[in-house]
Amino acid sequence: MLERINQPEDIKQLSVDELLVLAEDIRRFMIEKLSATGGHLSSNLGVVELTLVLHYLYNSPKDKFIFDVGHQSYVHKILTGRKHMFDTLRKYKGMCGFIKKSESEHDVWEAGHSSTSLSAAMGMAMARDFKGESNKVIALIGDGSLTGGMALEALNHIGHEKRKLTVVLNDNEMSIAPNVGALHNYLSKIRSDKHYKKVKEEVEHLLKKIPAIGGTLAKTAERVKDSMKYLLVSGMLFEEFGLTYFGPVDGHNIPLLLDTFRQADNVEGPVLIHVVTTKGKGYTPAEADSFAWHGASPYKIESGQMVKSSGLPQYTDIFGNTLIELAKRDSRIVAVTPAMPGGSGLLTFAKEFPGRMIDVGIAEQHAATLCGALAGEGMKPVFAVYSTFLQRAYDQVVHDICRQNLNVAFAIDRAGFVGADGETHQGVYDIAFLRSLPNIVVMMPKDENEMRNMMKTALEYNNGPIAVRYPRIAVRGVEPEKEMRSIPIGSWETVREGESVALLAIGPMVELAEQAADVLSMQGVKAEVINARFVKPLDAEMLKRLAKQNTSLVVIEEGAVLGGLGSAILEFYAMNEIDGMQIRIMGVPDYFVEHGSVKEQRAEVGLTVESIAAQAMSLMPRKRQRA
Amino acid sequence: MLERINQPEDIKQLSVDELLVLAEDIRRFMIEKLSATGGHLSSNLGVVELTLVLHYLYNSPKDKFIFDVGHQSYVHKILTGRKHMFDTLRKYKGMCGFIKKSESEHDVWEAGHSSTSLSAAMGMAMARDFKGESNKVIALIGDGSLTGGMALEALNHIGHEKRKLTVVLNDNEMSIAPNVGALHNYLSKIRSDKHYKKVKEEVEHLLKKIPAIGGTLAKTAERVKDSMKYLLVSGMLFEEFGLTYFGPVDGHNIPLLLDTFRQADNVEGPVLIHVVTTKGKGYTPAEADSFAWHGASPYKIESGQMVKSSGLPQYTDIFGNTLIELAKRDSRIVAVTPAMPGGSGLLTFAKEFPGRMIDVGIAEQHAATLCGALAGEGMKPVFAVYSTFLQRAYDQVVHDICRQNLNVAFAIDRAGFVGADGETHQGVYDIAFLRSLPNIVVMMPKDENEMRNMMKTALEYNNGPIAVRYPRIAVRGVEPEKEMRSIPIGSWETVREGESVALLAIGPMVELAEQAADVLSMQGVKAEVINARFVKPLDAEMLKRLAKQNTSLVVIEEGAVLGGLGSAILEFYAMNEIDGMQIRIMGVPDYFVEHGSVKEQRAEVGLTVESIAAQAMSLMPRKRQRA
Repeated sequence: MLERINQPEDIKQLSVDELLVLAEDIRRFMIEKLSATGGHLSSNLGVVELTLVLHYLYNSPKDKFIFDVGHQSYVHKILTGRKHMFDTLRKYKGMCGFIKKSESEHDVWEAGHSSTSLSAAMGMAMARDFKGESNKVIALIGDGSLTGGMALEALNHIGHEKRKLTVVLNDNEMSIAPNVGALHNYLSKIRSDKHYKKVKEEVEHLLKKIPAIGGTLAKTAERVKDSMKYLLVSGMLFEEFGLTYFGPVDGHNIPLLLDTFRQADNVEGPVLIHVVTTKGKGYTPAEADSFAWHGASPYKIESGQMVKSSGLPQYTDIFGNTLIELAKRDSRIVAVTPAMPGGSGLLTFAKEFPGRMIDVGIAEQHAATLCGALAGEGMKPVFAVYSTFLQRAYDQVVHDICRQNLNVAFAIDRAGFVGADGETHQGVYDIAFLRSLPNIVVMMPKDENEMRNMMKTALEYNNGPIAVRYPRIAVRGVEPEKEMRSIPIGSWETVREGESVALLAIGPMVELAEQAADVLSMQGVKAEVINARFVKPLDAEMLKRLAKQNTSLVVIEEGAVLGGLGSAILEFYAMNEIDGMQIRIMGVPDYFVEHGSVKEQRAEVGLTVESIAAQAMSLMPRKRQRA
Repeated sequence: MLERINQPEDIKQLSVDELLVLAEDIRRFMIEKLSATGGHLSSNLGVVELTLVLHYLYNSPKDKFIFDVGHQSYVHKILTGRKHMFDTLRKYKGMCGFIKKSESEHDVWEAGHSSTSLSAAMGMAMARDFKGESNKVIALIGDGSLTGGMALEALNHIGHEKRKLTVVLNDNEMSIAPNVGALHNYLSKIRSDKHYKKVKEEVEHLLKKIPAIGGTLAKTAERVKDSMKYLLVSGMLFEEFGLTYFGPVDGHNIPLLLDTFRQADNVEGPVLIHVVTTKGKGYTPAEADSFAWHGASPYKIESGQMVKSSGLPQYTDIFGNTLIELAKRDSRIVAVTPAMPGGSGLLTFAKEFPGRMIDVGIAEQHAATLCGALAGEGMKPVFAVYSTFLQRAYDQVVHDICRQNLNVAFAIDRAGFVGADGETHQGVYDIAFLRSLPNIVVMMPKDENEMRNMMKTALEYNNGPIAVRYPRIAVRGVEPEKEMRSIPIGSWETVREGESVALLAIGPMVELAEQAADVLSMQGVKAEVINARFVKPLDAEMLKRLAKQNTSLVVIEEGAVLGGLGSAILEFYAMNEIDGMQIRIMGVPDYFVEHGSVKEQRAEVGLTVESIAAQAMSLMPRKRQRA
C-alpha cells in the first residue's frame, strides 16, 4: 500500500480499511528504516493514525499542520514525498529529524524546542483572518510540551480571542521523561474517567434548551448549567480557558478520530481535541520502554537490541556520577531538571537521592528561578540543563540569579555542536549570552578530570552563580585522578610551553590545539597551548604575560565567534590599553549549522587540527615559515 | 498612629479598629510623599489592608513575603523601618522603588520583572522543607502577572508537589494596561459571582460526609462530588491545578482578610487566596484612572494634576506616531505588545487600528513567536517591547525568529539606561544578546528623524528579522525632515569629519560624541564623529577606511561593554586580519547600575562629554597633546 503513496492526495480516496492497512505499512517502514539510522521512533509510532487522519481530512499546505518540537513528523514526511530520504535521516546533508521548510512546502513551521506550536498556530490563524482566508490551522502538541510557559501563555490568548483553530493534545502520558505537574495529574484524571466520554454534544444540546433567565436568577442558572456540564463533560479546565473540549479519544482508532475531527470542525472558535496515544505503538520493545526508545540508536528489529556506542563514557555520565559523590558529602546539594533526568545523566542520582531530585517538567524559566530561591535559602542547587534550552531561561539568569548574585551552579550540557539534532539544538550561544552578565563565572573542562574538578569548584563556590559547560561527546580518556581538586577561579593552564604563537582553546578544542601544536612542531614552530578554561573571569595575568612576550594568539572555541571567548580576549586587551596584539579567532561563524555528526559540523566550520595549524602558521613572521 | 509604627512588631498589638485608622494614615502618608517624588501610587494604595494583614498575622522575615514585580511594596517598606526614606524614593542613591535586600532583612526576594514570585515561593518552600523548618511562604501576585508563562509553569509545579505555601492573587482587574486573556475572563466570571462566596468550607465538610464508594461506582460518585463543588465553590480552575481556593474576598475589608488568611492557614498543601482590590483606593484621581496613575509623576494632591515634563517628545512617542503613518500605507503592518500599549506609545495606534493592535497580556515569549508566525504568513508584525523584557523572549528570538529568518520588526524601547526603575529594567544587554545571532539586523537612531527613517527601513526590509532600539529619553530636537527615507542596511554615517581619532557612537551617544569633538577641537584635535547606527551588520567599508587612515577609535555605547558594539568592532578587525588598531570602548561596565536619573547613571559609568574627550585625548600621539 505504502508504495502507492507519495503525496497527501494519494490517501484521500482510500477507504477506512485501506487507511488501516496503510498505517501498518507505515509502522513497518519506520521500524525498518530507523533500525539502520536511529531516530525518534516511539513518538512517531504513536502518531501514525493521527497523522493519517489529518492528511486524509485536510488539505496541506493550504491547511497548516504545526508539529510541536517536530520530532513526531516522520509520518508526515512519509506522506509528503520524503519516503526516499529516510536512509539519510539525521545524517549530514540528509533529511532533518525535525520539520524543515526547505524540504517540503508541507513543512510550514520549524521547531526543535518544545511548546512553540500554539503561538505559531495563533499567529497563522490571525494572519488568515487578516487576509480574509479560510484555511484550517491545526497544532499538535504533547502533554509534556503543554506545561511549557509559552504554551500556556498562548492558550490564554487563544481562549480569549476565540479564533478558529484546533489544538490536538497528543497525550501519551510521557514527554521524554515521565511527566510531572498538576496538569499531568489533571489529564490522568480525565483519562481514567471512561464513563463520561463523548457525551459533550448531547449535553451542550440539552443545556441550550434550558431557557435563558434574566434578573437575579441568571447567575444562579448559569452556574447550575456549568455544574451539570462539569458532571458530564471532561476537560472543564480547557473549557474554563475558553476552548471547546473534545475527548479523550483513542488516537489509534481511525474511525473515531475521523468522527471527532469532523465534529470539532463544526464548532465555532478554538477547540482542543484530547487524543490518547501509546508511544512506540506496534513495536513491542518500544511500547515496553518508551523512555529508552524516545531517541533510539540503531537497533536489531527482531530483538529490539540497540547498538551501543562502545568505548568511553560521555561527559554527561561524568556529571551524573560526580554529582552523586559530591551530594554524599554535602546534603545541601539538590539537582533541578526541566524534564531531562535521563538526558542530563541524573537517573542514578534520582535513585540515590529521590528527595533531592527536582524534576519540574518542561519549564526552564521556573526551574532557573526556583534554583535562585533555593540558593537564596542556603541550598546548593545544580541546574542541569542543555545549553540550547538554557536560552529559555535567559531572563531568569539575568534578572533573578545574576542580579541577586545567588549561588546557583549551572551544569550546561550539550555545549558546542550537538550532532544529529542539528541547528535547533546547537549549544553555541551560551558563552556569548552568559559572559556579558555581571557576577557569573563560566568555565569549561578540557577532559574528564577537569570536569570533576570544576564540579567540585562550582559546588564549593559561594560568591554567586557559576557555570560548568560541557560537550555532547565522549570524554578524552585520560588517566583518572583519585581526588577532585578545586580550581582557582579565573586561572588558565599552560598545557604546552611554546613561543611566538599561543593556541588558546577551551573544552574539547584543547585536544585539537595540542594536536595542531604537534603539526606545527614538525614545521619547526613551537606553539604554546593554553587551556583557557575560564570564559569568565579571564586569566588577566596570563593575558598580560602573553602580551609582554609579544605572542600572537589563536583562540579556538566551539561556539559563536560573535561575542565569544575570542571577543572577550580582544575586549580585555582594549580595556587594558594593550594594543598591537595579533589575535585570530576560530569558532562557529554567523549562521545556523545543520545536522550531521559533531565531527562533520566541526569540519564544516574549520575547527580541525589542520586549520588550526594553518591559522597559527599564518601568524608566524615570514622568516619562521617554511612554506 | 503611623508615627508609632516603625517595625512589624509595632502593629501586632493593635486592635482591628486601630488597624483601620493606620490604613488611612498610611494612605495619607503615601499620597503626600509620592506627590513630591512620583512612584507607583495606585498599586500601593490598593494593597494597604492586605499588607497590614500580612504583617499583623505573620512574622517577617522568618515568614517570607514575596512581592511579584515588587512595585507594590511601599506599605511593606513603611512597616519595616523605611518611612524616613520616602523622600528619596527612586532617586539616585535613595530608596529603591522595588524590593531591595540591601535595604532591609524583611526584603527577601528582589524583582522588577513580573511573574517570578511563584517560582521564588516554591523554592523557599522546598528549602524550608529540606531544612526541616516551618515558616510560612506567601507570594503576592497580580492577575496580570499570573498570565506570564513562568508563573503558570510554577503553578503547575506547586499544584503537583502539594507543599504548604500561600499564593495571594491580588486581582485588581488591571495589570498596567487592562488585562487580556482567558484567565482574565475567568476571574471576571468569579468576581461577578457573588452568590456563592465563602461557602467553600461548608461544602468541603458536607462532601466529606458522603461515604467513599468502592468498585465501579467510585468514579461516578467522585464526579458527582466534583460537580457539586463546582456548583458551590468558585475558583475550580485553581482547584484543578491542585491548589485550595479561597475567595473572592474584598481586599479592603480587614476583618474579612484576617478571617480568610486564618482559615487558609489550617489547610494542608498550597492555597490560593483570591483578593479583589481597587487600584488607587482612597485617592479619587487614582481610582478614576488607574492606568495613568500606575507610574505617577509628581502631582498636586488637591487637583490630582500631574506635573508634566515639558518640552520635547520621547522616542516612544515618535515610535507610536510613525507607526500610524506607516500602517496607513501598508495594511500588513500589525503591532504586538505584551501588556504595554501605553508604555510603548501605542494607545493612539490602537484607536486608529483597533483590529491591528494585538495585546497578548504579560507574555513576551508567546508575543515573539506569534510575531514569527504572522511574519511567516506575510504580515508585517512589529513587536513593541522594552529591551529588558525582550530578555524573556530570548529563545524565541533565537530559535523561532532568527533561525527561520522571519520578517519580524522589533521596536526595542528603553534601550540603554532607564532611570528611576533601576537595575532590573536597564536595557543594556540587548546589543550583546542579539548581535551574536545569525540573520538579525540591529540598529539605533541618533535622533528623531533617523528613528523615523529606521522604522521605514525596518518595515520595508524583507530579508529577516530587524530591530530598532531606542532610548527612554526625550528626542534630540532636530529640524524635522518631511519625508522618511530608508537607510542602506549596514551603513554608518560620518557626522563630522576629522583625523587621527574617530568617535564611533550610537544612539544618544552620538550627541555626546559631537560635544566631545567640540571640546577636543578647542584642544586642537580634530576628531571624526561617526554615527555607528548599525550594530549589525557593521559598516565594513568604513571600518576598513579607518584602518587604512590609521585612525584610533573610541567606541561609545550605552550598553554592556562585554559583548557590545566595541566588541563587534574588535572582532571585525581580528576576523579581517587587520592588526595594530588602537581601540577603546566606553560603555556600561560589568555590574548592575542602580536607580537614579539617566544622567546620573551615565555619569556614574563615565559616559560624559568630558570623559569621552579625555579618552580620545589619551590616544593622541604625545606631540599632539597640549597638556
